[in-house]
Amino acid sequence: MSELRKDPVLRRWVIIAQERARRPGTFIEAHMRTRQKDIPPEECPFCHNQDPEIFALREGEGAWKVKVVPHGSPALRIYDKFHRHGYGPYDVTNAYGTHEVVIESPEHIPGMADMGDQQIKDVLFVYVQRLNELRKNYNLRYAVIFKNYGLAAGSRQIGHARSQILATSVTPIRIKDKLIGAKRYFDYHDRCLYCDMVRQELEQKERVVVETEHFVSLMPFAYRFPFELIILPKEHHSDFTKGLKGKEEDLARLLKDILTRFKIGLDDPAFNLVIQTAPFRRSRKNAKWQTLDEDYHWHIEIMPRLARAAGFEKGSGFYICAIPPEAAAEYLRDVQIAGDEPQTTPVTSHA
Amino acid sequence: MSELRKDPVLRRWVIIAQERARRPGTFIEAHMRTRQKDIPPEECPFCHNQDPEIFALREGEGAWKVKVVPHGSPALRIYDKFHRHGYGPYDVTNAYGTHEVVIESPEHIPGMADMGDQQIKDVLFVYVQRLNELRKNYNLRYAVIFKNYGLAAGSRQIGHARSQILATSVTPIRIKDKLIGAKRYFDYHDRCLYCDMVRQELEQKERVVVETEHFVSLMPFAYRFPFELIILPKEHHSDFTKGLKGKEEDLARLLKDILTRFKIGLDDPAFNLVIQTAPFRRSRKNAKWQTLDEDYHWHIEIMPRLARAAGFEKGSGFYICAIPPEAAAEYLRDVQIAGDEPQTTPVTSHA
Repeated sequence: MSELRKDPVLRRWVIIAQERARRPGTFIEAHMRTRQKDIPPEECPFCHNQDPEIFALREGEGAWKVKVVPHGSPALRIYDKFHRHGYGPYDVTNAYGTHEVVIESPEHIPGMADMGDQQIKDVLFVYVQRLNELRKNYNLRYAVIFKNYGLAAGSRQIGHARSQILATSVTPIRIKDKLIGAKRYFDYHDRCLYCDMVRQELEQKERVVVETEHFVSLMPFAYRFPFELIILPKEHHSDFTKGLKGKEEDLARLLKDILTRFKIGLDDPAFNLVIQTAPFRRSRKNAKWQTLDEDYHWHIEIMPRLARAAGFEKGSGFYICAIPPEAAAEYLRDVQIAGDEPQTTPVTSHA
Repeated sequence: MSELRKDPVLRRWVIIAQERARRPGTFIEAHMRTRQKDIPPEECPFCHNQDPEIFALREGEGAWKVKVVPHGSPALRIYDKFHRHGYGPYDVTNAYGTHEVVIESPEHIPGMADMGDQQIKDVLFVYVQRLNELRKNYNLRYAVIFKNYGLAAGSRQIGHARSQILATSVTPIRIKDKLIGAKRYFDYHDRCLYCDMVRQELEQKERVVVETEHFVSLMPFAYRFPFELIILPKEHHSDFTKGLKGKEEDLARLLKDILTRFKIGLDDPAFNLVIQTAPFRRSRKNAKWQTLDEDYHWHIEIMPRLARAAGFEKGSGFYICAIPPEAAAEYLRDVQIAGDEPQTTPVTSHA
């Protein structure tokens, strides 16, 4: 049985996936062979997918447009009970949770850069539906919605756009750390840190890539890797499902714009995309990082995998970045993207 | 001028290396071309190295055996002053610090697996000398000693063993987090967490790879990536330079043993090695994570780069690991290493 184990020093959790464990020898061989696999449409497991349907978005009663299926080798699953126990100085729980795959299109389209705005909007709609459904299970505290694009981003089967949703019984440490950081700022300033960032960045413009009516995409001032990007909603909301309401089309257009700039300007890079929303609910136990809606601000992170962390970064959590975010933002702003007249207007840097 | 920037949410620092900044276009081209370069000895910049010498270990007055030189494009440097300033909601300092390269041998040897024990001992001796020297600068708070082996570990020139020392004016966040975690455990239990781990792991043996007189190497119970390994000294010391005294030879032998097991058993994998020691000194300001010598315990982390973090890990700090540490440890214990009769005795698992 798989289990969750907690690092006793850093208090982060890891899923030790016993059920899908590979023998180390097999793992090494697989590692040596690892190549990105371009799956042709006729062999693609996501085209004409027959997996049991958790949820699907349909045109009337017709074929699905976006479909959610269980992950083939899930890292987490629903057990009768979520239980915890100690093991010497260590903490363990069963691997309670859910692991779903969102097939973003019935067609063999590699990513959002190649989709129409409406299709991206449909995917966002499905994310919201799943979060609202998963939230009902009181053993689940958080759901991470993410996307791996390309081998360097941890995806091995390339060619058919999809994302994953992992719902967990503990709040992941990076989410906690963000909540704590935002709360600390709010306690001190009585203002939301992310709202302040939006204001500062829109004034200075140097790190902004694209601004739309409801969102701003920018390179964070202290980013870790070249071209790391964050999409911030201008309006304050801690929760993605609530904050997105009425802005789906604007975000879909922005995502397509950004990912097209990546594809053209950065040679179709591998990237990860993650939605950073607040936990499903608050509990008294975790008062330290409990936020009210007012001090956390949902956002999306997009991390192109162009540079690798080395020993310094891995060992210290301190990063060295050879391209200032101002230069990266300017570069992406200048990428010429084809297609329809863009609704979004790249800003001009004041720098 | 390069600068240090602090992420306002997560409070980690990043060095934005303006001085060695590459234009984004050039960076993309370089990224597309990136291949591991095997440097032949006749072109190797570390063979017959003529860089100014910061420190060298010599046989009498003869040629150097281990040499420390300034990094060719340093991420940090010594300025007249270490200064800090605010920038809107952000914190900035100048990139004060040092960046040195330790050339581990005059000969063109790729790594410690291929060195004699004495040579590894010499390298450890040089690490200690440099830490003791760097510690004298009161603007420096911490020095990260690390090694990148192989392209996937962030090294581009392969073939000549070396390590790096980056001394910083701020304590890196992962070090702080470890100090806080260890202190929290000590405050609660009145015992060192790492000492407890040593005892627990030596009793259970399942995750131990090799035990020597003074050290134990093991796969941590909640490790993030397959074959991540930690070397713990049995005797409690917070500081590497003090804790190593009299145990240099034992550690050198262990390092060679472990890295040989990696090389043979894991197909010569890329890896990072990092020494995790306490900060140079304590300051009242940082009482929260200040430790006494009694609650932190120095150690070495070795991280083979066999698996990649994907969107889930990147976004949440929560990891999925497909090989349980018990299986990985058993696999490495069973690797047959050639050469002299080993001084180290692989343990037998009780599992």
